[in-house]
This record gives sequence, C-alpha cells and structure tokens, in this order.
Amino acid sequence: MRLVRYGGAMSLDGYIAGPNGEYDWIVPDPDVDFGEMMAPFDTFLIGRKTFETMLRAGNAKPPAGIDYFVFSNTLKAADHPGVAISNDPVHTVQELREKPGKDIALFGGGDLFRTLLRAGLVDRVEVSIVPVLLGGGVPLLPQPADRAKLKLRSQRVYEKSGTVRLEYEIARYGLSNRTAPAR
Amino acid sequence: MRLVRYGGAMSLDGYIAGPNGEYDWIVPDPDVDFGEMMAPFDTFLIGRKTFETMLRAGNAKPPAGIDYFVFSNTLKAADHPGVAISNDPVHTVQELREKPGKDIALFGGGDLFRTLLRAGLVDRVEVSIVPVLLGGGVPLLPQPADRAKLKLRSQRVYEKSGTVRLEYEIARYGLSNRTAPAR
Repeated sequence: MRLVRYGGAMSLDGYIAGPNGEYDWIVPDPDVDFGEMMAPFDTFLIGRKTFETMLRAGNAKPPAGIDYFVFSNTLKAADHPGVAISNDPVHTVQELREKPGKDIALFGGGDLFRTLLRAGLVDRVEVSIVPVLLGGGVPLLPQPADRAKLKLRSQRVYEKSGTVRLEYEIARYGLSNRTAPAR
Repeated sequence: MRLVRYGGAMSLDGYIAGPNGEYDWIVPDPDVDFGEMMAPFDTFLIGRKTFETMLRAGNAKPPAGIDYFVFSNTLKAADHPGVAISNDPVHTVQELREKPGKDIALFGGGDLFRTLLRAGLVDRVEVSIVPVLLGGGVPLLPQPADRAKLKLRSQRVYEKSGTVRLEYEIARYGLSNRTAPAR
C-alpha cells in the first residue's frame, strides 16, 4: 500500500513555520537533494492555510507528474483548476491509499497532520531539524493531539548546515496503544 | 568560563514533559550512561515547578558534590535546607559563571530556560529526542520567546531505543542577531 509521509523542515523547538508563517530560518544546505527527496511521491496533501501561502507566493500549480489535494471547507473547486479540493481528508486519504501509485506526501499543515494521525492514516514522520530555536510559530503537531509512538528508521547529518534529518515510522497510535494498521 | 547547559529528554514535537508533567514516555536505553552525562556538572539550576515535582517525588536533596539553585519568588529558604533559593535567576547565574567550578546544568524548567536565554546566559542546548509525539505538554521553550541560532556540536543515535542525542552551541541570540558573549 502507498505510504502517507509527513515531513519538512522543523526548528529544534518543534515549529514548521514562524509565528507569521516565516520560512526565513530554514538554512539551505548544498547537500540536500530535493529532486531525490521528492522522487518517491506523486501526490501531495495540502492544508488550506498552506495552500493560501502557496497562492500568495504564486506557487500553487502542481509540477508535472504530481497531483495536489487541498483540504478546505471554503475553497471552491471552480476557482482552482488543476488541483483537487476536498472537505473530507479522512475519506479522501483512505481512497487514495487504496489506489495504485507512488507515496503520498503530507506537505505543511499541522492541523491536517493531527486529523490524519488521529484517523491512523499517517505512516511516517520525516523531519529535517534546522539548528534554530524559533520560540513560537506553527507547530509540527498542534496541541492537544493524541500521543503516537515512533520508531527511528534513519538519520543523517548535513554537516554544512548542521541540519539533522530524522525519519520515523509511526509504531503505535494514541494513548490506548492501538496498533497501526497492517500494511 | 563555566558553561550553562540546558538539556534533557524531549519528544519529537518539542515537549520535555507531558500535559500533567508525565515522564512515562521516556524510553530507558541501556547505552545511556547517566554518570558520564552528569560528570561535567557540579551545579544544577532548577525552576520552581520542576523543584515541586522533585519534592513530591521525595527527590529534592542534592547528591554529594552537587549544588542546587532553585528559582522562586515564593519558596522560603528556611523550608528547604540544603538547597539555595533565589528570586533573581539572571543575577545568580551571572555570579555563578564568574566563580570557578564545573559546568552548570539547567535542569527542567522551560520558563527558566526562556529567562536565561533572553539574558544571553545559556551556552548550549543538549537534547535527547525520544521517538514519540506527545501532542501537548511542557515545551522545551515556552512561547513567545526570542529566536536563537544554534550550531550543531555533536549527534549520537542510541540504537536500542531510537533516541537521538543532539548537542548544540547557541551561536546567536535574538532576532537582532546579537552575538553571544565571548567565552
């Protein structure tokens, strides 16, 4: 089954963007190969707030070979040709996982992560820890959220920037230690 | 000069304790050598909330060779023989840094970390990232706090538990990129 993978750059204190959505703290590292990092994916799941940031940046059109699914109760499909809009992330992601294809990237959107985590629909968490304390911002996982036990799959240090890439599998969901769905 | 080092176990989403102060998520790892980890220190800085947790656990007496400094406006020195109590962390830590001795551990207490970070009195942040998402709790650094740029000093993976130890130097304090005090 296709995997749903949540990831991105994170500050050491657990934020994926600054208090006003800032990304200026993300240190570029010449050894990070974005092409290689994106190669396993053909589908992006995007929260409404993240999509609006992309719209403002004029960067909301999917590249060739990638499908965008945006989750919102208010955006209208007619206004955004080229992306799929859904107001039911759980149902949409359940359907996507059953279809053949490459892996599914959960891109930005701590709220969307929380919703899909609660539904047991996230397989991996993959963060690049940037050497900074932000002291506030958009959290990786907004509270309150369920606990999830992780299993470290791999780690890599990017020496030039001091960024640490950590890849985890979600081993168990929730306080009740419900086991993750078999795959 | 003696270094002030803040550290401890942290969840991947940036919490040093659960919403009710829980530590049950910290996975013991047989390869973690606490004696070795504590050897560089002879002084502990302890926030009031952390100290009260230690009191409740019957664990508030310093071991031989260690001095405890507890920061509080309300605790009375007469009630707590054997520990020093101060209501002025900035002044106390400035004085401690000038004295000869081993390094100074900032132990628990995100609020105390924020206060000392703002005053430019923390040299290192050393966290052991436990493979768990807590979804809420006591943050490593309570918001709002100033930004601080870090520099990765070392990393180590504890394979048995999947804990990742990351040690950083504080490279620059605050949004204004004020340089850290020379040492």
